[in-house]
Amino acid sequence: MAQYSSQLDGVFGALADPTRREVVRRLGRGPASVGDLAAGLPLTLPTFMKHVHVLESRGLITTTKSGRVRTCALNRDRLALIDGWLAEQRRLWEERTDRLERFVTGGDHQPREEPR
Amino acid sequence: MAQYSSQLDGVFGALADPTRREVVRRLGRGPASVGDLAAGLPLTLPTFMKHVHVLESRGLITTTKSGRVRTCALNRDRLALIDGWLAEQRRLWEERTDRLERFVTGGDHQPREEPR
Repeated sequence: MAQYSSQLDGVFGALADPTRREVVRRLGRGPASVGDLAAGLPLTLPTFMKHVHVLESRGLITTTKSGRVRTCALNRDRLALIDGWLAEQRRLWEERTDRLERFVTGGDHQPREEPR
Repeated sequence: MAQYSSQLDGVFGALADPTRREVVRRLGRGPASVGDLAAGLPLTLPTFMKHVHVLESRGLITTTKSGRVRTCALNRDRLALIDGWLAEQRRLWEERTDRLERFVTGGDHQPREEPR
């Protein structure tokens, strides 16, 4: 659970930057070299590499080096952590809506608060 | 578009912290006072208030004050920004899968790369 929370910290933090989101978006089309990814971005290569390192250290991408070319690939499983977290929030909202509905339709005496 | 990107920065950054995610989760059950939200958390009230301020400034929650009680409520629309972003990524993955499939089944001569 502590590891799950720490992974969520890492993924949410990694995506709180437009350059890193752009890399994730580009890698959604398939693996790409660092050079191709950096081309067209208004960043120096060392700055861009820092973003690549953040994405790799948080598990969102993997990189492999062949000769002088480093290729990046997306790790969708790590991105799916956020899907799971959002699904959990939706479940809580729906439970609340159900409780309110039971209250309004007289199926229950009052909206119950769950223990915190 | 710049505003959308900046809002995504804010929402992803706000959720990169377990206390703030816990507040979002709790507010999913309905509005709650700052005092109730802070109870049970291993934080001083000033520290907790900083987290509340981050969530409010990024638009994830709204707060209203009545007498001495400040009540927080979740802004689901802002959280839905992430849903939208994730849906866009999935669309890109599916397009890629479709291209690969056309290539394998001979419906296309080679997987086409989209212009970047």
